[in-house]
Amino acid sequence: MVLPVVAGGGILDRRCFLKKGLIFSVAALNSQSLAAETDEARQSWMKTPGQGFSNYGQPSAHERQTIRWTMANSMAAGNGVSWTPLHELEGSITPNGLHFERHHNGVPQIDPAQHRLLIHGKVKNQLVFNLADLKRYPMSSRLCFIECGGNSNAGWRQKPIQTAAGYFHGLVSCSEWTGIPLSILLEEAEVDANAGWLIAEGADAAMMHISIPLDKALDDCLLAIYQNGERLRPENGYPLRLLVPGWEGVVNVKWLRRLHITDQPVMARNETAKYTDLLPSGKARQFSFVMQAKSLITSPSFGHNLPAPGLYQISGLAWSGQGKINQVEVSADGGRSWAEAELQQPVLEKCFTRFRIPWQWDGKPAIIKSRAIDESGYQQPEREQLVAARGRHGFYHYNAIVSWAVSAQGQISHVYA
Amino acid sequence: MVLPVVAGGGILDRRCFLKKGLIFSVAALNSQSLAAETDEARQSWMKTPGQGFSNYGQPSAHERQTIRWTMANSMAAGNGVSWTPLHELEGSITPNGLHFERHHNGVPQIDPAQHRLLIHGKVKNQLVFNLADLKRYPMSSRLCFIECGGNSNAGWRQKPIQTAAGYFHGLVSCSEWTGIPLSILLEEAEVDANAGWLIAEGADAAMMHISIPLDKALDDCLLAIYQNGERLRPENGYPLRLLVPGWEGVVNVKWLRRLHITDQPVMARNETAKYTDLLPSGKARQFSFVMQAKSLITSPSFGHNLPAPGLYQISGLAWSGQGKINQVEVSADGGRSWAEAELQQPVLEKCFTRFRIPWQWDGKPAIIKSRAIDESGYQQPEREQLVAARGRHGFYHYNAIVSWAVSAQGQISHVYA
Repeated sequence: MVLPVVAGGGILDRRCFLKKGLIFSVAALNSQSLAAETDEARQSWMKTPGQGFSNYGQPSAHERQTIRWTMANSMAAGNGVSWTPLHELEGSITPNGLHFERHHNGVPQIDPAQHRLLIHGKVKNQLVFNLADLKRYPMSSRLCFIECGGNSNAGWRQKPIQTAAGYFHGLVSCSEWTGIPLSILLEEAEVDANAGWLIAEGADAAMMHISIPLDKALDDCLLAIYQNGERLRPENGYPLRLLVPGWEGVVNVKWLRRLHITDQPVMARNETAKYTDLLPSGKARQFSFVMQAKSLITSPSFGHNLPAPGLYQISGLAWSGQGKINQVEVSADGGRSWAEAELQQPVLEKCFTRFRIPWQWDGKPAIIKSRAIDESGYQQPEREQLVAARGRHGFYHYNAIVSWAVSAQGQISHVYA
Repeated sequence: MVLPVVAGGGILDRRCFLKKGLIFSVAALNSQSLAAETDEARQSWMKTPGQGFSNYGQPSAHERQTIRWTMANSMAAGNGVSWTPLHELEGSITPNGLHFERHHNGVPQIDPAQHRLLIHGKVKNQLVFNLADLKRYPMSSRLCFIECGGNSNAGWRQKPIQTAAGYFHGLVSCSEWTGIPLSILLEEAEVDANAGWLIAEGADAAMMHISIPLDKALDDCLLAIYQNGERLRPENGYPLRLLVPGWEGVVNVKWLRRLHITDQPVMARNETAKYTDLLPSGKARQFSFVMQAKSLITSPSFGHNLPAPGLYQISGLAWSGQGKINQVEVSADGGRSWAEAELQQPVLEKCFTRFRIPWQWDGKPAIIKSRAIDESGYQQPEREQLVAARGRHGFYHYNAIVSWAVSAQGQISHVYA
């Protein structure tokens, strides 16, 4: 059968899985004897009754490598991050136990019966809500990613970091969030006409606080109470977090206790000293809230191993804070030629979009990469373009194309290419 | 403000949340002093650094009531069910720890390195796969519910059961499943022209097995490896389960080890003695695979309490094995009048669809109910219609409209009405 090659290095037409007669796995055995063995042999777990029912399930003991990788400040154990293991996951949902974390002073253990949300400042009606009050308000649900503004910052290093895809880019996760549209509460508070900002504050010991333009608050922000169906986890803001769709993680304030309506931003640490970008001009870029389009091949990726030449499926994630992903292109020849990947349907705005494309690996060294284009027309930049625009002093907001080198032995490493 | 009442008992237009000036919560306080107190008072968790990072997160200690309710056979601890607490959840995703369970002989603890899948019988190529083989095949993801054919069977009782919505109807859950389209493997096996059935068998100690028509297997079945992004949980078939979208749970074989292609169904226990319906005619209905359209108000529902008259949001779930939910209607006057609820977007086929509608409760006794209509035109029946059609000997496949009675004190009970 002639395979429909559409780009260099063996990238095949994304629809070729629909064709008949495609033999995907050279590893699949076709053996009467092994068939008989499987039919007859009873593994130990088929010889005795299994375990009983559980009130709350946990992953298999064989999946203990699928964890968040944590990195805490040695001087302050509750300051740091943990990464989602994107390289171990598939689909587009991040399970709650694996959602990335970024805490400034640890995870407060909040009694929801004692928690309050205050709306005050430039409003006609100062309002205080407990959780029981809030649960009477109308709710809405949406699938949405949250990405830390510092995600992928190892990309700014002079040499490519050699680590798993998730431990490089996994300060991003995607959940179904359910909560109250913030606009409903702000309307009840009757915001002053000259107000322009909202200072959101968390109930952690750092009282992490940050400024958000009122226009965004009135647009699509949610006061999230549920994540992937259940109540928020403590490390994701239990019992209440602010969801600011498509904007950098730090504004999605966890353990939300206060919304102060003002006419000015507060110039907090995390919008001045941190989460800003020192540009080549010497000026710092500030309030660059929107996370730009990005994509990442998760399989195969660093640490994976291709057992032999043959057919593979390249799989990855794309997302954009501007809206929907319009297109993801994949290259297997280091970017000389590109082909369009299949996007998992439905494609939703500000949400992970899983992309996939078949690849016939010929066993020679190859460089695979992906690039996302969102509905605003923005195209994910090559690393050299990003560095040219933003200079060498950056730490945040890295979204360049990621390149994985495949060796003749099928081993995968990270390269700048 | 004049509220846009569209059905009896105070059901409001589903779009009225978009109007300005709607004061939803009579419970929200407007107190300068409480505002000041919240602003100043520091709860204990704001006075010391919080907990550190975790490799795999867990729910808050304050959410220990949000559990699967288990009911095991006293003679065989691994035989029984556990229910998803639908009355505690929101949105449309079920977190993996709370997905319902139905096991016949417990949960086998499978070493994935030892697990094999055999495809044999009426095929040209007998095939055996290990997990590493399978992971080279192309994958696809979809959001999809699974519902046990025995879900809601308490509805057949003469008197309405008084239990929480999830412990009555929670043998249904909804996840994002990722796996290999079964059609790809069946094509590689080259199924005989005269084959018509497929016998799927699990690797539990009961070797649970069941017959599935080949047409369905070639249509939209998946060999699922991932659930909500991570590998399957043991109680959901780790490392491999069959996903048969829209069909009753028992055919979605967990711990899948064997697919035997035949020309006849095997007439297993679970398609003869069980999961069949003895009709008034004396004949038993067999192979009634598709789960018909159903809906359920989850909030407010049994055990919830309305604190005072005023505005509420009625929220619930609808689903259909036939495809998409086209419409959900809600009544607050025991079914005399109905209004169309808002459906959470996007509406996907064979998937939970969250519906919501605002309700102005006047403080008088009321009966609230919902009914689903799917894209096939099928409408969820009233209980008396279902009983008339199916008789008094049923145990499975109960999908009648559920009615909750609200007392003048705001307490909610289950009624047949």
